[in-house]
Amino acid sequence: MNTSIIRYVLGNVLKVEGILLLIPALIAIIYQENIIVFYLASALLCLLFGILMTLRKPKTTIFYLKEGCMTTALSWILLSFFGCLPFWCSGEIPVFTDALFETISGFTTTGASILNDVEALSKTSLFWRSFTHWIGGMGVLVFLLAIIPLSGGSNINLMRAESPGPSVGKLVPKMRYTARILYLIYFGMTLLENILLIIGGMPVFEAVCTSFGTAGTGGFGVLNSSIAGYAPHLQWIVTIFMILFGVNFNAYYLILFRKFKKAFTMSEVRVYLLIMFTAIAIVFFDILEMSTGIFDALTKSSFQVASIMTTTGFATTDFSLWPQTSKVVLVLLMFIGGCAGSTSGGIKVSRFVIVCKTIVKELNSYIHPKSIKKIQMDGKPIEHDVIRSINVYFITFVLLFSFSILLVSLEGKDLVTSFTAVAATINNVGPGLELVGPTQNFSPLSPFSKWVLMFDMLAGRLELFPLLILFHPALWKELFTKKLGSRKVEIHD
Amino acid sequence: MNTSIIRYVLGNVLKVEGILLLIPALIAIIYQENIIVFYLASALLCLLFGILMTLRKPKTTIFYLKEGCMTTALSWILLSFFGCLPFWCSGEIPVFTDALFETISGFTTTGASILNDVEALSKTSLFWRSFTHWIGGMGVLVFLLAIIPLSGGSNINLMRAESPGPSVGKLVPKMRYTARILYLIYFGMTLLENILLIIGGMPVFEAVCTSFGTAGTGGFGVLNSSIAGYAPHLQWIVTIFMILFGVNFNAYYLILFRKFKKAFTMSEVRVYLLIMFTAIAIVFFDILEMSTGIFDALTKSSFQVASIMTTTGFATTDFSLWPQTSKVVLVLLMFIGGCAGSTSGGIKVSRFVIVCKTIVKELNSYIHPKSIKKIQMDGKPIEHDVIRSINVYFITFVLLFSFSILLVSLEGKDLVTSFTAVAATINNVGPGLELVGPTQNFSPLSPFSKWVLMFDMLAGRLELFPLLILFHPALWKELFTKKLGSRKVEIHD
Repeated sequence: MNTSIIRYVLGNVLKVEGILLLIPALIAIIYQENIIVFYLASALLCLLFGILMTLRKPKTTIFYLKEGCMTTALSWILLSFFGCLPFWCSGEIPVFTDALFETISGFTTTGASILNDVEALSKTSLFWRSFTHWIGGMGVLVFLLAIIPLSGGSNINLMRAESPGPSVGKLVPKMRYTARILYLIYFGMTLLENILLIIGGMPVFEAVCTSFGTAGTGGFGVLNSSIAGYAPHLQWIVTIFMILFGVNFNAYYLILFRKFKKAFTMSEVRVYLLIMFTAIAIVFFDILEMSTGIFDALTKSSFQVASIMTTTGFATTDFSLWPQTSKVVLVLLMFIGGCAGSTSGGIKVSRFVIVCKTIVKELNSYIHPKSIKKIQMDGKPIEHDVIRSINVYFITFVLLFSFSILLVSLEGKDLVTSFTAVAATINNVGPGLELVGPTQNFSPLSPFSKWVLMFDMLAGRLELFPLLILFHPALWKELFTKKLGSRKVEIHD
Repeated sequence: MNTSIIRYVLGNVLKVEGILLLIPALIAIIYQENIIVFYLASALLCLLFGILMTLRKPKTTIFYLKEGCMTTALSWILLSFFGCLPFWCSGEIPVFTDALFETISGFTTTGASILNDVEALSKTSLFWRSFTHWIGGMGVLVFLLAIIPLSGGSNINLMRAESPGPSVGKLVPKMRYTARILYLIYFGMTLLENILLIIGGMPVFEAVCTSFGTAGTGGFGVLNSSIAGYAPHLQWIVTIFMILFGVNFNAYYLILFRKFKKAFTMSEVRVYLLIMFTAIAIVFFDILEMSTGIFDALTKSSFQVASIMTTTGFATTDFSLWPQTSKVVLVLLMFIGGCAGSTSGGIKVSRFVIVCKTIVKELNSYIHPKSIKKIQMDGKPIEHDVIRSINVYFITFVLLFSFSILLVSLEGKDLVTSFTAVAATINNVGPGLELVGPTQNFSPLSPFSKWVLMFDMLAGRLELFPLLILFHPALWKELFTKKLGSRKVEIHD
């Protein structure tokens, strides 16, 4: 186990966070808020730890999948821990569990809040809250990849652990180059939404925070009414950008390099849009009767379906009061999520596409038992190993989900609350139904439930295994054995 | 496609049903009920169709997996259709959809009822209702295997399609012999429960029906209060037999042949009992406060956990009113179900054991990427193909489940009702929560929802693929092509 590289990368993560924490400090200057001291102190603390941890360079920069996973999981935990300090120390969120919950919810782009009154926060904290979405959306480690040089094939082990979705293979060869391009796209699209919102008449500060929330598919709002108070044309801008940020970024990459045909025939994107528009249609007809007109119903259904499917979690209406069919559609969409390689959560459309193809293949095998056709996607065969790991992912997800519901139910809230609280966090959506519905928040839950849900948010964002592996005894045994007997010859697998 | 063998087997199924329908006719004689004419007429109809369909012997008795699946699915549909005729024609269940629902619920050993007043039925129909559980428990086709001679390896394709659980491999070599032994065990245990209940003071008729319901893990009661009205010692007899009927019958087979060590170390049975007793403990402490004492809490928790986990569905109390944790435990148990090779439904313990081992293996692969250890169970390695098919089963189950909830939600019942109605039927349990709770029934649901749930009951009992395959276009194309151009050379795979 290469512990020195883990320490080194974690140190760099803290340094980056230290710098990022200076940005809300700038906001504090603009709005002349005293809270600036807490942001500066937190930034300093991050930089101090970061510098201490990176003083000694690692002996080797090669690291394996297990180190990649461990680094990823630990860096997200560290990020959240240091990121919650300003909330907690300033007393804006006086309980540590709540401050950590809010920050994990931010970084994992969940958007589930424990705040009863969002508007009571300082502008600085509101900014930092939305900014965590933006940071978490693309992943801090991928960002590091664009900066720190790591030896050859090792980067992939980091990216594999952090990127959403089953395949990062395609863009690998020029990793650092690719990471930069992806950041440019991300940055450009956020800026575009921001400008459009400002032109549309949204106050600048709110427009910045809203576009951070959309880009990261997070969902923290700066108003208690989320997006409901804005004019319909602003809601439509957000709707369109939510849909755009749920698309596989590879598509934009391809468009940027003028490979239009390849971009527009990506089957994941097609299925994503198909599900999206079907769901909008179902919800539209379901809520038509209770709406004030066709346009109102279309605005609300499009916004809410886009918000839930991309796992953003903004709300323009209390969908807890919608008819049952619409609620079931929304809950199912939470699990599907957006495309792999986007900023959204959920199980991801590509996994569903492959899983459905697997089922069809299984049915075929009953009719032609000796057929050995491979499952294809976008014209390329998918390796058995990828299919196997998707199957295992799916199953692990379902079991973790069920177990979490059991734990959350211990405090005795109703079934729909427990079920949707877990669904909304493990899929990084934000609001659920009933007690955790869009007009409510997660504060009434017990601290124990909050810890379970924090775990679920991280598990969902890191796609389960990088987090679960932290609980593997072999990993700790290995760390421990190495420290005790460093002369023992280690066989790297 | 060997259509003649399908016709032949289906004909035999109808003949068997014709004979089985004569048994409630005997009950009608004992209780001097006029309804006898409907049972005799239905029996006659079955025999007539059966004889017509078996007039011409099939050219060959070899058949492949696809024929096996088709035969299985069609025979269960036929059985239910003819089995519901006495209910419907006699007017005891005047609506056809309801009569069919009740019969499918019986044969699939679900026990979900649409009757508001069970006690209003004639004794004859009450008997037939419980008897369908007993018939469905072991499967009609396995019963046929004990009677009809089919050529060599073909039997396995029938048994594979009908038997619950992932592996029937072990008992295959002497199939017909094995089938007879299993029937003897089934018959013997039912008789034993029956005798014990009568000794315990239960009226004979009720004891017979209750033991049918227990043996098939069905759950139809003959009283509106299900089992709640009986003395605690009778409830305990039922509890113990429910647990026994949820055990893999291979264990009894091994015990019968004095292979005690092998029987008592079967890991599936151990895990089954472990989950059972853990769940009883959780529910016991959860309901202790609202019970009249320790014994009362223990009786109720044991009965209800055993009833739900074995997917029987009897009730001694309205668990809809229990605390949330207990309800969540019960709902989760519905999905786990009993052992493979028992009469119970659900996903089956062995599948969960293998799935959990797969997850652990996946985690290991992050630490030792090149390890190629195979997953083992009971000391034997499990083939990749078995694991793959279990994974696909699990995923198909989840998707079918979600899709069914969407369809059932169309009628606008609350989420918990829709969710547990599907959970209780696809897992062949019986009662759910809220509107379909243990003191309620399925009658308030719309006909459309009932059809969806009927499909789910059959899909659950036949373990998905044999039923789903009926919707595969290739199958119908093949049937159709053969009829049109019989001179075309068919390549059997």
